[in-house]
Amino acid sequence: MLEALKEKVCKANLELVQHGLVIFTWGNVSAIDRETGLVVIKPSGVSYDNMKPSDMVVVDLDGNIVEGDLNPSSDTPTHLALYRAWPEIGGVVHTHSTYATAWAQAGLDLPNIGTTHADYFHKEIPCTDFMTEEEVKGAYELETGNVIIRRFEGMNPVHTPGVLVKNHGPFSWGKDAFDAVHNAVVMEQVAKMAYIAFGVNPDLKMNEHLIEKHFNRKHGPGAYYGQKKK
Amino acid sequence: MLEALKEKVCKANLELVQHGLVIFTWGNVSAIDRETGLVVIKPSGVSYDNMKPSDMVVVDLDGNIVEGDLNPSSDTPTHLALYRAWPEIGGVVHTHSTYATAWAQAGLDLPNIGTTHADYFHKEIPCTDFMTEEEVKGAYELETGNVIIRRFEGMNPVHTPGVLVKNHGPFSWGKDAFDAVHNAVVMEQVAKMAYIAFGVNPDLKMNEHLIEKHFNRKHGPGAYYGQKKK
Amino acid sequence: MLEALKEKVCKANLELVQHGLVIFTWGNVSAIDRETGLVVIKPSGVSYDNMKPSDMVVVDLDGNIVEGDLNPSSDTPTHLALYRAWPEIGGVVHTHSTYATAWAQAGLDLPNIGTTHADYFHKEIPCTDFMTEEEVKGAYELETGNVIIRRFEGMNPVHTPGVLVKNHGPFSWGKDAFDAVHNAVVMEQVAKMAYIAFGVNPDLKMNEHLIEKHFNRKHGPGAYYGQKKK
Amino acid sequence: MLEALKEKVCKANLELVQHGLVIFTWGNVSAIDRETGLVVIKPSGVSYDNMKPSDMVVVDLDGNIVEGDLNPSSDTPTHLALYRAWPEIGGVVHTHSTYATAWAQAGLDLPNIGTTHADYFHKEIPCTDFMTEEEVKGAYELETGNVIIRRFEGMNPVHTPGVLVKNHGPFSWGKDAFDAVHNAVVMEQVAKMAYIAFGVNPDLKMNEHLIEKHFNRKHGPGAYYGQKKK
Repeated sequence: MLEALKEKVCKANLELVQHGLVIFTWGNVSAIDRETGLVVIKPSGVSYDNMKPSDMVVVDLDGNIVEGDLNPSSDTPTHLALYRAWPEIGGVVHTHSTYATAWAQAGLDLPNIGTTHADYFHKEIPCTDFMTEEEVKGAYELETGNVIIRRFEGMNPVHTPGVLVKNHGPFSWGKDAFDAVHNAVVMEQVAKMAYIAFGVNPDLKMNEHLIEKHFNRKHGPGAYYGQKKK
Repeated sequence: MLEALKEKVCKANLELVQHGLVIFTWGNVSAIDRETGLVVIKPSGVSYDNMKPSDMVVVDLDGNIVEGDLNPSSDTPTHLALYRAWPEIGGVVHTHSTYATAWAQAGLDLPNIGTTHADYFHKEIPCTDFMTEEEVKGAYELETGNVIIRRFEGMNPVHTPGVLVKNHGPFSWGKDAFDAVHNAVVMEQVAKMAYIAFGVNPDLKMNEHLIEKHFNRKHGPGAYYGQKKK
Repeated sequence: MLEALKEKVCKANLELVQHGLVIFTWGNVSAIDRETGLVVIKPSGVSYDNMKPSDMVVVDLDGNIVEGDLNPSSDTPTHLALYRAWPEIGGVVHTHSTYATAWAQAGLDLPNIGTTHADYFHKEIPCTDFMTEEEVKGAYELETGNVIIRRFEGMNPVHTPGVLVKNHGPFSWGKDAFDAVHNAVVMEQVAKMAYIAFGVNPDLKMNEHLIEKHFNRKHGPGAYYGQKKK
Repeated sequence: MLEALKEKVCKANLELVQHGLVIFTWGNVSAIDRETGLVVIKPSGVSYDNMKPSDMVVVDLDGNIVEGDLNPSSDTPTHLALYRAWPEIGGVVHTHSTYATAWAQAGLDLPNIGTTHADYFHKEIPCTDFMTEEEVKGAYELETGNVIIRRFEGMNPVHTPGVLVKNHGPFSWGKDAFDAVHNAVVMEQVAKMAYIAFGVNPDLKMNEHLIEKHFNRKHGPGAYYGQKKK
């Protein structure tokens, strides 16, 4: 069932390791098949060393295990909440990558202060609100999804494909699993650059025109970056 | 004697190198066989390059060499003090890993400011007191163990499996040698993240509910992370 | 056409990856053949993994594609502006390398505070002015070249072979593609060192005599570094 | 001539690369044969990629080339000044390693704030004085040696086997070339840890008793670290 998607999700999980975003089992990637509404996700707490496509778990959008011998990632309800809320997305990633996690621990939005950021994220990468005792003690992983979705009210998740969950770490998404991993790498890198840049100059100012230009150069209707137009 | 344990301890020592926690000979791992009360530990000042299981030294809990041609690690009395004090632990690690050592030099507790920390350490990772002239000039390595044990009065060493020895560096422990190494890797990573996070926002605030949730998700009686329940 | 130069430019692009200056497609190298006035440049948005010399694009100094099946780098007009303005240069590099980009985001000149810097850059590495709305919305990549050239009025681009484009990232140049890559590596390293040095001591002072000595030891008419004199 | 020493010096130079202390040609190692008073040193500006023992240059203590087809390192007069001043040392290293160089640019002594430092350096690693116009414009590399020697008046260079040359970078030494490289690695690591530690706590305090204990545990007459006593 969904063998091609399992292969992609397994490969995307391993890309997290190759890009230095995870140690041990601290990350997970999923992808959705929109036709069937089924989600393929990494099993919980399994080492990346010998992970293979057949280890991937298939769940439906309500979290029922449809196929797989292992428990799905404990973060599965967060992934599912995002898939339910945002039909535009096809892949979700969660990591504890160093700088993005540190910024989440700092509890602040990651402002858009350079073209590297603007090439991928239209606005700041938002940090979610403090989770309440009720949310944490209740259906915690589902509520994590809900605080993300709430934070994106009025924002376009396709134009800002990532978030910092306060005191926790980053989630990112994309049109498929690889795109979501790509955005996770970008988040880690722009978090690192922003940390250094504010260290150099706490009063730095971004150029709003550059944000619009760079974002639209790659993502707007008149995008001309890359080979797409040919 | 204890051939299987020597092999594990040797392998765990090499894992320190693979995880980037040691340069030269700056680290040591031990493990205890609780049935015989014998401890297997790395020899002192020996390079990791050609280290083999037969180089490991076997000592009893009083520090007498029971087997081995080499001197045991000069930190052996610290390891032994921890094994004597805490029957729950099976492995001990000492490193000079960069960020954990820097935090120890800073002389401050490493506060629990994120879920990465809370997944492994229930509370702050404590920093020991200033060692007195008498302690340093006396049985120094034994006294290092004693300041650690004193700092843990009222704390559960299994729930907080690591410590920062002031002006020196980190020690960690676990149910066996590999678990202790695992916790050493986590300490280094959370020390790095905390350094960055406080750089981004010196006034950051942790969410106490998240600490309880994440710690218990992995360690409490109702733990549901990973594949253990299957 | 220009097969030897294509091979060099392709190799120089791959050196960016080897030196850790780029992730994904975030960088580009070009070189000019001054006899024909033709420029060889990396294609836009193409992965470094399988890049080969025949993928390189040949353009004239007005930006017309003379040979190549792929779109040239979207930064091509910036490269061309520099080649037109400065006949002394033979190669141009643009990256989003971590520390140089962070310093560009900080929006400050990178001061010459050590001999490592002075061995390659005679003065500070300047940061360009804020780009105006007209410049950004107009021929943006050409205007990026223009703000660089304007910033270098009264400076010798051969003696200061690099610049920080404000809110964006570094450009460097040299006598050929490899020399420009070399200077990109130096910029990243001195940006990193300056970040750390100002962290240690915000009031540090450079020795102006050392700047002159080190720059001239390698670049002046009496240069005696290396094997050139033999 | 001195074939065994050339082999060692060549190998020690390559160790700088393996330990990540140099990029390009930014480092040099030498060693002295005290019987003949001849020094073997890396050639100037030569890439590490194909360096072989026969490339090493032999000079006498006055700087005359005794053997070798290449120019010796431009820093040779600094090395020779140290060998002339301190008969106890057998090897000298100069690098532009990141954190030690940044600390030299900061222009401050690197204080002894932890046991990692105290295991190798008895006191702070001193930073030299500002070099005067006369020194810089005169026999610069010789004068660099002189400012180092002047800074060590009243200090034991064997107990503090390294220095930060202000606005420039680190030099280290040891009983032979490998020992000098070892100390260069330690300097870089303790410079990094001190940078982080002061970032965590600008008011940190070292324990003077620990300095004495750790230094003497490895270097004093009653040293008991390692396997030496057997």
